[in-house]
Amino acid sequence: MSDGEMVRPADGQMRGKTHFFPVRVYFEDTDLAGIVYHANYLRFMERARSDMLRVVGIDQRAAVEAGEGVYAVAGLSIRYRASARLDDDLVVMTQVETVRAASIVIHQRVMRGEEILTEAMVTAAFITLEGRPRRQPRAWMEQFARLQREGDT
Amino acid sequence: MSDGEMVRPADGQMRGKTHFFPVRVYFEDTDLAGIVYHANYLRFMERARSDMLRVVGIDQRAAVEAGEGVYAVAGLSIRYRASARLDDDLVVMTQVETVRAASIVIHQRVMRGEEILTEAMVTAAFITLEGRPRRQPRAWMEQFARLQREGDT
Amino acid sequence: MSDGEMVRPADGQMRGKTHFFPVRVYFEDTDLAGIVYHANYLRFMERARSDMLRVVGIDQRAAVEAGEGVYAVAGLSIRYRASARLDDDLVVMTQVETVRAASIVIHQRVMRGEEILTEAMVTAAFITLEGRPRRQPRAWMEQFARLQREGDT
Amino acid sequence: MSDGEMVRPADGQMRGKTHFFPVRVYFEDTDLAGIVYHANYLRFMERARSDMLRVVGIDQRAAVEAGEGVYAVAGLSIRYRASARLDDDLVVMTQVETVRAASIVIHQRVMRGEEILTEAMVTAAFITLEGRPRRQPRAWMEQFARLQREGDT
Repeated sequence: MSDGEMVRPADGQMRGKTHFFPVRVYFEDTDLAGIVYHANYLRFMERARSDMLRVVGIDQRAAVEAGEGVYAVAGLSIRYRASARLDDDLVVMTQVETVRAASIVIHQRVMRGEEILTEAMVTAAFITLEGRPRRQPRAWMEQFARLQREGDT
Repeated sequence: MSDGEMVRPADGQMRGKTHFFPVRVYFEDTDLAGIVYHANYLRFMERARSDMLRVVGIDQRAAVEAGEGVYAVAGLSIRYRASARLDDDLVVMTQVETVRAASIVIHQRVMRGEEILTEAMVTAAFITLEGRPRRQPRAWMEQFARLQREGDT
Repeated sequence: MSDGEMVRPADGQMRGKTHFFPVRVYFEDTDLAGIVYHANYLRFMERARSDMLRVVGIDQRAAVEAGEGVYAVAGLSIRYRASARLDDDLVVMTQVETVRAASIVIHQRVMRGEEILTEAMVTAAFITLEGRPRRQPRAWMEQFARLQREGDT
Repeated sequence: MSDGEMVRPADGQMRGKTHFFPVRVYFEDTDLAGIVYHANYLRFMERARSDMLRVVGIDQRAAVEAGEGVYAVAGLSIRYRASARLDDDLVVMTQVETVRAASIVIHQRVMRGEEILTEAMVTAAFITLEGRPRRQPRAWMEQFARLQREGDT
């Protein structure tokens, strides 16, 4: 048995149509103002999107290694309402808003308890490894459509 | 004489109402897709904004050390049009769009030659070190107003 | 009840004198070579050290906010043996090696299953917020001494 | 003419056998202790090594794109003596110490004026894109040998 067997990275969870993903704030995330540097919330949100894909069975690494393609952020709008600090336990809430042939629109909020710290709308485009837009794999689109229907039942 | 005396970090330049700031892409900026990781353009843009403040005589570090306050990003919208790669020489173009009592709105583009890679509208709020909104120093607001008039002549 | 209540960041665990801390690799951690960028293992190791302090009841944020001091890395030696890739589940193993009045020496390994990817010896010095060396709080030193004795029984 | 034509990233310079490379400290580099986060000096040093290669005519991006190989850090020892702060102008001094068939050993210091902030010995191994050790291109090794002889005349 590996000594490290029992500690595992925190997995996110789907509940209805929302994916919940935990993040803790470390020194690397802060800047001299004592708060999380603004660009680092984009890292937290990307971790949550990658985890959501993983939870629904989409293997991004296999898709890259097979040369199929990769998601790239095509645009985003973000509002910063309150600041996270060292050791804060945050939760990123993620919902698929719109699924198009070659992109998805995703709504994300970074929460500290009941408080919304940061809120964003992110458009991720599926592209080839050479950078050209590409239709998402059909099975993935069906997964996203399923996610969106989840909470409606 | 210091051995290092003659090499200096690249300074940005104001031309009319636009600030130009150069960035080169290093390994740290890329991800496994071979392109600059999306959150890192926000770092490039922040470097350019800090340099613009420096060029017009605003000393952010002194303001922090004196407990006066600091700029924090309150919101931004960004579009990613094309990707930067290792060793690319980029230029960040920055313009002050709107100056309010406690915030400024700034338009930024990351260029590779004539090509716009990324374009953003950024709202930066001036806040106390405890995180409360605060009026920007009067002298700074006058500087921003001067910048906006520059190109009009 | 908060929607986010049940997802929590992964905590590390002490087992004997070793602390185990899980890390998953995300896009932000990789570079264009398809592997984790070398400086990012230092981030993983710092997360693990901070978690170890947290697990034994040391509150770094409170110490900073009270103006008592903070740990700063004074030196480290690291060997990179094998590379981590996107989606890898890693475990950082951490052991306190030596406790001195104003510093501690820590041995850390980043594991993927049974394989050692990276191994480091890190010296962390306790310093005031102005950057001067300072004795570690007595209660902390007793905690470290206790950790070192753990596995001996 | 491109508006951005005249601003360029700062290039490093070889003087004798030493390469000098300038770095300015931005918000992204600092942490809540108000100083540069320890892992970020490794980023500064990697920028300087990449610039040194560029200055002597080695094109890392072309080598990656042609599938020839890439440098990976195999190990390093670093001492942190003093801290850099926001807006500091630093110079990274780099010297090739030893050239072997598949690796080079490099000595690097991060300076603020005459003061050594950080000093490191870095071993970089040339590897295939699959991660296996590989002989460095002969022309590159000759360049490194030439660098080492420079200051001796």
